[in-house]
Amino acid sequence: MMVKEYISTNKDRFLSELFDWLRIPSVSADSRHKNDVRKAAEFLRDKLSHAGVDKVEICETKGHPIVYAEKIVDASLPTVLVYGHYDVQPADPLELWTSPPFEPVVKDDKIFARGACDDKGQVYMHVKAFETMMKLNLLPCNVKFMVEGEEEVGSDNLGTFVKENKTKLKADIILISDTALISLEHPSITTGLRGLSYMEVEVTGPNRDLHSGVYGGAVANPVNILCSMIASLHDENGRVTIPGFYEKVSELSAAEREALNKAPFDLNEYKHELGIGEIKGEKGYTTLERTGVRPTLDVNGIWGGYTGEGAKTVLPSKAHAKISMRLVPNQVSADITALFTKHFESIAPAYVKVSVKAHHGGEPAVTSTASPAYKAASHAFEEVFGKTPIPTRDGGSIPIVALFKKELHLDTVLLGFGFDTDAIHSPNEHYGVKNFTLGIETIVSFFKFFAKK
Amino acid sequence: MMVKEYISTNKDRFLSELFDWLRIPSVSADSRHKNDVRKAAEFLRDKLSHAGVDKVEICETKGHPIVYAEKIVDASLPTVLVYGHYDVQPADPLELWTSPPFEPVVKDDKIFARGACDDKGQVYMHVKAFETMMKLNLLPCNVKFMVEGEEEVGSDNLGTFVKENKTKLKADIILISDTALISLEHPSITTGLRGLSYMEVEVTGPNRDLHSGVYGGAVANPVNILCSMIASLHDENGRVTIPGFYEKVSELSAAEREALNKAPFDLNEYKHELGIGEIKGEKGYTTLERTGVRPTLDVNGIWGGYTGEGAKTVLPSKAHAKISMRLVPNQVSADITALFTKHFESIAPAYVKVSVKAHHGGEPAVTSTASPAYKAASHAFEEVFGKTPIPTRDGGSIPIVALFKKELHLDTVLLGFGFDTDAIHSPNEHYGVKNFTLGIETIVSFFKFFAKK
Repeated sequence: MMVKEYISTNKDRFLSELFDWLRIPSVSADSRHKNDVRKAAEFLRDKLSHAGVDKVEICETKGHPIVYAEKIVDASLPTVLVYGHYDVQPADPLELWTSPPFEPVVKDDKIFARGACDDKGQVYMHVKAFETMMKLNLLPCNVKFMVEGEEEVGSDNLGTFVKENKTKLKADIILISDTALISLEHPSITTGLRGLSYMEVEVTGPNRDLHSGVYGGAVANPVNILCSMIASLHDENGRVTIPGFYEKVSELSAAEREALNKAPFDLNEYKHELGIGEIKGEKGYTTLERTGVRPTLDVNGIWGGYTGEGAKTVLPSKAHAKISMRLVPNQVSADITALFTKHFESIAPAYVKVSVKAHHGGEPAVTSTASPAYKAASHAFEEVFGKTPIPTRDGGSIPIVALFKKELHLDTVLLGFGFDTDAIHSPNEHYGVKNFTLGIETIVSFFKFFAKK
Repeated sequence: MMVKEYISTNKDRFLSELFDWLRIPSVSADSRHKNDVRKAAEFLRDKLSHAGVDKVEICETKGHPIVYAEKIVDASLPTVLVYGHYDVQPADPLELWTSPPFEPVVKDDKIFARGACDDKGQVYMHVKAFETMMKLNLLPCNVKFMVEGEEEVGSDNLGTFVKENKTKLKADIILISDTALISLEHPSITTGLRGLSYMEVEVTGPNRDLHSGVYGGAVANPVNILCSMIASLHDENGRVTIPGFYEKVSELSAAEREALNKAPFDLNEYKHELGIGEIKGEKGYTTLERTGVRPTLDVNGIWGGYTGEGAKTVLPSKAHAKISMRLVPNQVSADITALFTKHFESIAPAYVKVSVKAHHGGEPAVTSTASPAYKAASHAFEEVFGKTPIPTRDGGSIPIVALFKKELHLDTVLLGFGFDTDAIHSPNEHYGVKNFTLGIETIVSFFKFFAKK
């Protein structure tokens, strides 16, 4: 039986299994979902076991567990280490979902659910690609799986796990499906990822909420102060003003910029799809450059004072914000976190107190397009999509890539099948059924070409 | 029996009655408390009735009801119209209360509860002063009560009620206890109040929450934009930048400023009590001027993006803020609301959409210190406190004062007994038991001197 045939014959079962997994709200950021996160790990353990791995185990960490599994065909053959994550982003704002985030449905041939694309849907392609290769006797090399439950909260315990299990994790290449294609017509492979520094700040004014009439105008308002401090973090050219922020940023050569901008991109379509009148970003760079190779700073959340119904004339005691920075080669997350903290504290005026805390970080990464593994991935796309994939830079972060390079000296191939428009981290996250099935086929094809190398 | 004696004899009963009233969470801003607001009105109706008014009624409005009562001794005698409000501010943030906001307790001779001072505690002084005068046969003139349930949400329906009941409300003076004393050692009478324009703004960027990695740096972040817009509303001298904002502000004469600054004020004590290192306000003015005679702009609340536990890398679709301005003579609330709206829309960059909505407003007011009513109030303080009260300007707003002047052509005496430090609108609002009993005594004394005039 052919791969394509096996996948289409079993497609409905593949999907209903994935749906069972998506129904488990494994939100790693929310401690109320701690048990759901574990349930999702146990679900994956069982599916990998049924698919035919030699062994599978749930490895405890200080936080959420890591699922590890392996199938050793022959120790002399190369080994592919598949990485992914089974935790998901919080689903809020819930009211904006057109169907419940943890009750998956297919609409317009797309799976709608939190985690449908990021990353349960993409991880499950690997589970089913493995099953396919086992059932059709096509597995050409060894495979290991390491799927964590803390990617959405910064993979705090993955580093330790990797350091402590270097032998177990011995492999020849890392394979990750957690990125996006330009389109099915324009298959692409991500060759660059941004790093991350995620901060939380608190600005305290008076020691209690005050009546804005009695004190307004005489006492610094921490919300107004926080707004001014945040506003000052960008200059008129959209550049981040933190001293030293750009110091280590590697500028692309004219040739590299030209190659990067070759990727199909329609600005009007982009604006239309987002419902915005104008784009905004660092002066002197294109949108593909701004998201691919330039560092950024964004407020991810802000709150302070009275946010309920109606009007309350309060001068708040405190204001808060979650602020994150996306990093590019060769910025170092710990350095940027330190620079932000130093700068934010230094711009705090005398009439407020400021506290800065770091949530998590990750290093930027670039993968080679010259490696045999990349070529195998490229051939796989050519076989399944009939087109050579375009190398792209993705704005997102997968800190594990840099971690693997550092700790295991292994390169990574980012074989992702989502779309930027899949609304990951947003209400109504979805993943194309076709992306799912073509993904499985491409993964099987990758193993074939990679083992041949 | 003497007034002082009657009050001390009945003090415990007065307090336990007030406590019953304070237990009713009459939060007018929160529709979930609609029935509690009505219960608080019914409670007041019954107490006024027991105190001996000729008639008392609950007057329906489009919102929360107004309690009206009257005692006509002799139509030829002058009439005092007592105004107050029985609704209270929301109690949140609840976690900062040291005792539950709607379970009143006395600590250090202070009543702790939401509404203890603003304004149930101060309104109840009038009910008990009336009872005292009735019981001791001392009521020297007619008295009317108008107590509303929407003061904390802008008295939306009071204007209509006043316009439609001019005959019923016919009086010679308005008496309001909803302001503060400097201290028991330095009794004072508020002679000026600020007006208010309360706005809510919404800034919309992309049509959905986005992944801050995939889009960050290429799409305007509405939270960052809102922060910049808010930051731009003040200049480096702490002045509001809205064009025309100061146009109608009446500047005080050097003599008036000198008189205003005569009020005892200790900046170190002020900073210490608020727990702030430095004060902040409009350059060139003292703290008493900044809160008393200068207009201001404050953010009362801000929210947008992910504000939950942990970290979510989202580029939010929307950001919101509640922004209010305190107004001084001769600013007009409707004009300032229009100026704010026009300005805020005009500074919105092309990459976001902005919507501005007005919550409520009120006009500033100044009361005469030369009127017989003011003199009667001054004498009352001299009799009870043994000191001539200091005329002060209060930063808060009681829009009804300007409304009464306009619709009923009546002056107001602001006979308030709270302290600025009573934490009204804040957690742990409180009101001194002594302020409460001395207030009752002073009100009785005011009636005596006012009827003599």
